[in-house]
Amino acid sequence: MKITMAHGSGGESTSALIRDIFSKHFKNEILDKMEDSAVVEGSSKIAVTTDSFVVTPIVFPGGDIGRLAVCGTVNDLLMSGAVPKYITCGAVLEEGLDIELLDRVISSMAQTAAEAGVMIVTGDTKVIENRGDEPGLIINTSGIGFIDEKNDAIGPYNLGDGDKLIITGNLGDHHAAILGCRMGIENNIKSDCAPLGDIVSNLQKDGIGISAMRDVTRGGLGTVLNEFATASKCRIELFEEELPVDKSVREFCGLLGLDPIYMGNEGKAIICVRSEDADRALSIIRSSKYGENAAVIGTVYKESSDSADSSVILNTKLGGKRVVGLMYGEGLPRIC
Amino acid sequence: MKITMAHGSGGESTSALIRDIFSKHFKNEILDKMEDSAVVEGSSKIAVTTDSFVVTPIVFPGGDIGRLAVCGTVNDLLMSGAVPKYITCGAVLEEGLDIELLDRVISSMAQTAAEAGVMIVTGDTKVIENRGDEPGLIINTSGIGFIDEKNDAIGPYNLGDGDKLIITGNLGDHHAAILGCRMGIENNIKSDCAPLGDIVSNLQKDGIGISAMRDVTRGGLGTVLNEFATASKCRIELFEEELPVDKSVREFCGLLGLDPIYMGNEGKAIICVRSEDADRALSIIRSSKYGENAAVIGTVYKESSDSADSSVILNTKLGGKRVVGLMYGEGLPRIC
Repeated sequence: MKITMAHGSGGESTSALIRDIFSKHFKNEILDKMEDSAVVEGSSKIAVTTDSFVVTPIVFPGGDIGRLAVCGTVNDLLMSGAVPKYITCGAVLEEGLDIELLDRVISSMAQTAAEAGVMIVTGDTKVIENRGDEPGLIINTSGIGFIDEKNDAIGPYNLGDGDKLIITGNLGDHHAAILGCRMGIENNIKSDCAPLGDIVSNLQKDGIGISAMRDVTRGGLGTVLNEFATASKCRIELFEEELPVDKSVREFCGLLGLDPIYMGNEGKAIICVRSEDADRALSIIRSSKYGENAAVIGTVYKESSDSADSSVILNTKLGGKRVVGLMYGEGLPRIC
Repeated sequence: MKITMAHGSGGESTSALIRDIFSKHFKNEILDKMEDSAVVEGSSKIAVTTDSFVVTPIVFPGGDIGRLAVCGTVNDLLMSGAVPKYITCGAVLEEGLDIELLDRVISSMAQTAAEAGVMIVTGDTKVIENRGDEPGLIINTSGIGFIDEKNDAIGPYNLGDGDKLIITGNLGDHHAAILGCRMGIENNIKSDCAPLGDIVSNLQKDGIGISAMRDVTRGGLGTVLNEFATASKCRIELFEEELPVDKSVREFCGLLGLDPIYMGNEGKAIICVRSEDADRALSIIRSSKYGENAAVIGTVYKESSDSADSSVILNTKLGGKRVVGLMYGEGLPRIC
């Protein structure tokens, strides 16, 4: 069975598609009402985020566009210090898309939402013409999280002199998996796409003060740290030998001349903590789900404002120093 | 200037695009923080909705995809009895899209958000390959509204015997405008796309009890009323001569054999009120912005449960009766 333009009409075919695929997998008492909006319990302070996912291929080693969409949105909420609660699902399907493939993706979204502890409360489906070879789909997930007002504010403006940077795991896995898949290279590299709730909640439970955190996706660590440096007017120093990169990914990068610092991940965060908490934070992250390869990779330096140098410096393995700039140009398109 | 794949990389080009187009128009203190999630004030009960917009052409008589996106999401929130507060903007751009056109669409979103009293708090941008002739864009808007717990619950399950159905204006304008535009027909038909906040808040201010309401979009009035009849186990009777349709749209429909009952609108709602409130509700709607052509078009009949007949009947101008079924097949694709 294939998706046809009639599935996007808003009539009987649309209802059948929603019933047989989306409602079947997402089933919950809120979504089942099928109203224009989902009405849910709120909170006095909320975090709101949105992400569209256009990754190709739709299914890749270690995940698929559905798992990616839920993880991406859940992680964005977590990075603001929120507890993820609700997710929306806006699906744009290309005419000719295989309905079994759609079923697999939507099932994966449902499983990932259950793993991450979020409820998919409302959705929308549209169909567009297929103008390429392989009919694809685009998924938008928006998310709402609750913010506990007792938690400290989190953001790069909180970065302090001496803060340590912890990366929660190996760099570049998702990017390398997508690229390898597109190039038809057989290897054992898998996307890291994963929800980071266990890591964040374990840190919070143990009272670790997080000054800033962000998931390291499109644009890679280099882009995130430049944004941190600019927003905080800090200098950030990294140590190349501390950057965790899986052996297969390192070899893959060497072969293609890629730099893991600019490669996208979908289950990694950079978490900044006060210097005195760094060891404890590292051990909590390492014993959390998806955090086993975490490492302390650098330090924040806050100079007096008149000598402020908001830059990111990499101390290389050979003892040199190199400025890590913003990524220019294309990167790898349609990675997420 | 055209959109390139580099605008979707997450690096410097993406930042520049966001700064020069999205941030410029959407400018507000929440969005300006550029965090992974927007942190905003919440409420104890909230409504959540999502919609993707794939309309072609991007700009049409009476509106554009940007205005449509904001109106569609704001109206979905209003229909649940919520006060619309926050909107997200997920843009998927095709390579080669004209940046001036994007600027126009995003400016239109900002103006419509201001008109509707909502804040655009967070966004996301992706770029995909252009595989057709004319590069397009897809916009997802998700929305959050606050629900006043003092307001009665709204939904088709509240429909009662004798309730009157009020349509807030002429049927079919958006559908006819899009179709005319695609066929290159010159006429004066304009899309009705508009936010319905003035109508709904005026009814609420005057204490009109609304049993159910829904905006009449894709699938048309026929589809919405069938959903109402099924959910409420009611019979709904419509009067053909009461259905308001603009003269130009009526002529256009006659020419093409279209039925306004199944045509999509983007600034019309069907509002159900108790019989005794119908006259007052009609006059409030008619004196509200975008409600001047409102009309009472039918009645709800709730029989005893063992003779329940959940159907929609049209009393024709010639005195006959016709069942208004669900819309089957394609309808007009990419209308919203």
